Amino acid sequence: MPPEARDSIVLTGFKHVPANVRGLGRDLRIGWALKEIGKSYGFELFDAFVPRGDEYRQWHPYGLIPAFDDGDERLFESGAILLYLGERDERLLPTTQTDRWQAVAWLFAALNSIEPFVLQIAQLDFFLSHKEWAAPARANAVRQLTARLRDTEAALGSREWFAGTFSVADIAMVTVFRVIGHTPILSEFPALTEYRARAEQRPAFQDALNEQFENYSEPQMQEIGS
Amino acid sequence: MPPEARDSIVLTGFKHVPANVRGLGRDLRIGWALKEIGKSYGFELFDAFVPRGDEYRQWHPYGLIPAFDDGDERLFESGAILLYLGERDERLLPTTQTDRWQAVAWLFAALNSIEPFVLQIAQLDFFLSHKEWAAPARANAVRQLTARLRDTEAALGSREWFAGTFSVADIAMVTVFRVIGHTPILSEFPALTEYRARAEQRPAFQDALNEQFENYSEPQMQEIGS
Repeated sequence: MPPEARDSIVLTGFKHVPANVRGLGRDLRIGWALKEIGKSYGFELFDAFVPRGDEYRQWHPYGLIPAFDDGDERLFESGAILLYLGERDERLLPTTQTDRWQAVAWLFAALNSIEPFVLQIAQLDFFLSHKEWAAPARANAVRQLTARLRDTEAALGSREWFAGTFSVADIAMVTVFRVIGHTPILSEFPALTEYRARAEQRPAFQDALNEQFENYSEPQMQEIGS
Repeated sequence: MPPEARDSIVLTGFKHVPANVRGLGRDLRIGWALKEIGKSYGFELFDAFVPRGDEYRQWHPYGLIPAFDDGDERLFESGAILLYLGERDERLLPTTQTDRWQAVAWLFAALNSIEPFVLQIAQLDFFLSHKEWAAPARANAVRQLTARLRDTEAALGSREWFAGTFSVADIAMVTVFRVIGHTPILSEFPALTEYRARAEQRPAFQDALNEQFENYSEPQMQEIGS
């Protein structure tokens, strides 16, 4: 379907992913945000094992998921898409200025100060664990992540969410935390562990996660590489 | 100076940093943006070798630089501060919606899709090069960064800037590229190399860089740890 013909929100996601990374795709961030505000969306699904081509890179320059199209804007980068949705609905981004900018700061913190270490660990564990250098590289990443999580827990304090009400900052932070869900790292931080559980109990999260898992069960493509 | 007494913009930065990372501090991003719009600012400087304490972490939860205070908002995360400034001045962020959201997407791309690999390489080169595992870990990061740069160069095409006019996306992208300036990695990409040079020729960049280097020459603190 050409982009100019879209009359509802379209996200890109994956049909087939290795079992150990299911539920971690970044399209979940956007699906969760859309469920929070009751907006319907459809998926354009790719086989994770088949590289996306040049045409898709006109939409998402890195060939990753998610890309987003609501008929008005075609966007890539989950942080940008979250912000775009947040600006259009106060259930995703507070409108009072100080809360709003704290939410934006924590959105960037999740993606720029925490996710880089989380992704290093996940890559080492899921794809490079057979390499001799994986163990010391992992220890280095875990040390840095642990320091960041300690500061993050201190900053959260006894608050329920990072910026007043629930916001895109929490969606980003929790979906980043999920990527180390196969490790005991987060469990050293009881307030962050409770925070993650509180967020994941939201019906919008559950609905979006279920939808992501339904995508994984789509039939395998017949013509790989087509 | 207590935050409520501020009547001009204050950034935090470093007085003393190792020679090989001078000119790379993330406060440069904010200084550059402020110079572009002719806003003056002052610095609150820390010794890079002395950990920041709990009081500073009320302002910047990770104890990093830059933190920002304009009397209205106290912010951390360079991406959030760039966006905050961009929303207030179209010389930093286009106001037409499609250009604006492309700029936001590329701002996130610089910080979330490129900077993580750049920082891995910089950390390995500057602080961990004596480790046995540094070389293979570096090769892995360079491989991933190179793929991202190839896509980034293709996306830039023959354009001057990433989103119509010059924007905070370009400030983020170029300051990220600077962090691998000690390597030949960027030189494999002629269009990105020219783009970096074009951005660094802007007077606002030069002024902000000069100001950052002036900070480095501030007298050493007498009481380390005080």
